Amino acid sequence: MIIALAGGVGGAKLVHGLAQTLPPERLLAVVNTGDDFTHLGLPVCPDLDTVMYTLAGLANPETGWGIAGESWRFMDSLGRLGGETWFRLGDQDLATHVRRKGLLGAGLSLSAATRELASALGVRHRLVPATDDPLRTRVTTDAGEIDFQDYFVRQQCRPTLRALRFEGAAQARPSPAFAEALADPALEAVVICPSNPYLSIDPVLAIGGVREALTAIDVPVIAVSPIVGGQAIKGPAAKIMRELGREPSALEVARHYRGLVDGLVIDTADAGDANAIAALGMTPHVTGTVMKSDADRASLASEVLALAARLRQTAAQGSSTRRRTA
Amino acid sequence: MIIALAGGVGGAKLVHGLAQTLPPERLLAVVNTGDDFTHLGLPVCPDLDTVMYTLAGLANPETGWGIAGESWRFMDSLGRLGGETWFRLGDQDLATHVRRKGLLGAGLSLSAATRELASALGVRHRLVPATDDPLRTRVTTDAGEIDFQDYFVRQQCRPTLRALRFEGAAQARPSPAFAEALADPALEAVVICPSNPYLSIDPVLAIGGVREALTAIDVPVIAVSPIVGGQAIKGPAAKIMRELGREPSALEVARHYRGLVDGLVIDTADAGDANAIAALGMTPHVTGTVMKSDADRASLASEVLALAARLRQTAAQGSSTRRRTA
Repeated sequence: MIIALAGGVGGAKLVHGLAQTLPPERLLAVVNTGDDFTHLGLPVCPDLDTVMYTLAGLANPETGWGIAGESWRFMDSLGRLGGETWFRLGDQDLATHVRRKGLLGAGLSLSAATRELASALGVRHRLVPATDDPLRTRVTTDAGEIDFQDYFVRQQCRPTLRALRFEGAAQARPSPAFAEALADPALEAVVICPSNPYLSIDPVLAIGGVREALTAIDVPVIAVSPIVGGQAIKGPAAKIMRELGREPSALEVARHYRGLVDGLVIDTADAGDANAIAALGMTPHVTGTVMKSDADRASLASEVLALAARLRQTAAQGSSTRRRTA
Repeated sequence: MIIALAGGVGGAKLVHGLAQTLPPERLLAVVNTGDDFTHLGLPVCPDLDTVMYTLAGLANPETGWGIAGESWRFMDSLGRLGGETWFRLGDQDLATHVRRKGLLGAGLSLSAATRELASALGVRHRLVPATDDPLRTRVTTDAGEIDFQDYFVRQQCRPTLRALRFEGAAQARPSPAFAEALADPALEAVVICPSNPYLSIDPVLAIGGVREALTAIDVPVIAVSPIVGGQAIKGPAAKIMRELGREPSALEVARHYRGLVDGLVIDTADAGDANAIAALGMTPHVTGTVMKSDADRASLASEVLALAARLRQTAAQGSSTRRRTA
């Protein structure tokens, strides 16, 4: 069984690749909730929804988020009435948040509500929030600390980012399915999808006990670099790395995950980083990581799984490659 | 200045007729809130919205309620997700309730929130809820007491109605603009629009002090019968009258409003009731009351205003027609 940690668009693509490759019982997608917020009185979970819509085959292929063929009559009307329009909710997407509110209001956990929603959309693979507890990413900018969606959507990541804080993370506990999978003897590997390490993966790692559990487990942890040729495929990862004083590169991603991951999948454009990555104590694997089609997703997923199998075998032969620092 | 008491579709049409006839400062539309309820976590005010959309020129001409050219993608998606679909909220209409929730959440009264919404939609005439306080119509049926919208929409008025109760009405107070208008020396008449007397007007009359104020004021109170030829133009008024043991007729409407109104406008189809209505102590006025076009609305409004002016004049000459029983 494979745990895949994912954030938004890039993560969702690899989760989809894994779902094409693995039967439902062999995959658990664990999704960042640091971006979640209450908007217009509704509980909005951008990363969970991106992964859910992607697995349901509903995702908008142009944006990566939202629903294909979405309409905006609600939003247009709300704007006309003087309501907030900076965070755009499509007519169909809105139903997800309204239904989630109803389910949470009826006492369901976010995990259970997500299961209801995903199941209704025909998603067969398991999809859970990293935690059912409150966890909110807060961004320190030159102009002070602001909410994540204020930074990410309202201000379009324009403010210079100085630090990130994951409010509630230390008190939060992994969601039941995530905790169970981490302790499951059937666990074969943990895949850190090519999501933003700072915005999408760090909040998951900050949840009480997660980093420790990932460091302690004796199955390979494989990450896929979201940085390709010094650029992020999508989103502000490269800009954020620069603002945090780091060169946007696959090697820097390796440094960020040092002590946690056993293997790092990097793009052919970054093959030059392979030796330096190996020197950090992890196994680099060079391949094409840009996922333009469903086949690209499945192909990258297969390579990730093959790398995990290889590292598992090496470990079984007694010569573990792990040199984790934790 | 004219106060118009209105409920849903029929009332909205006459309010629109009055708005075509009177400048904004001379009309105050006071709308029933007994039908209001919270649905999907949103504050829904069906009668206020029907009057607002009608005055804004947005109303769906087929249904009388909702917005012309409405779309239903939110509702269809919500149904797919297992959400409640018995009360249908269109994509555009939904924005009204979401915006209202935001305004109420920011501390505005329902009156102030309604002013914001109506103003954004370009409504120039004043439109207020009858009360800003909680007031909920509850329906006693053969199967027990149920919420109004459960009776009206979910069960499509099928249960036999035995009684109505206006929860909170005695503790409620008229909205500030309504209270002010009732005491305004510039008040010329109160018009009770052709709305359902039991479901739409009685909740307004049940608000603390309203019936007393209407009985005490020295300007004419004119009602328009919603029953034409023994039938309701729209809605369950005739069915309800039968279930309450009353013959659906203009005369029965007159009996219902006895002691409260000075003049009753009835349809030509009901001209035969005129003498009996006069015998109850109110002035009947026979005309075409079915409003099929904007011109019909304006024409009926003009007749209502003319009747009010005539009764005012009669009163000024010292020979009041009023024989109120209160």
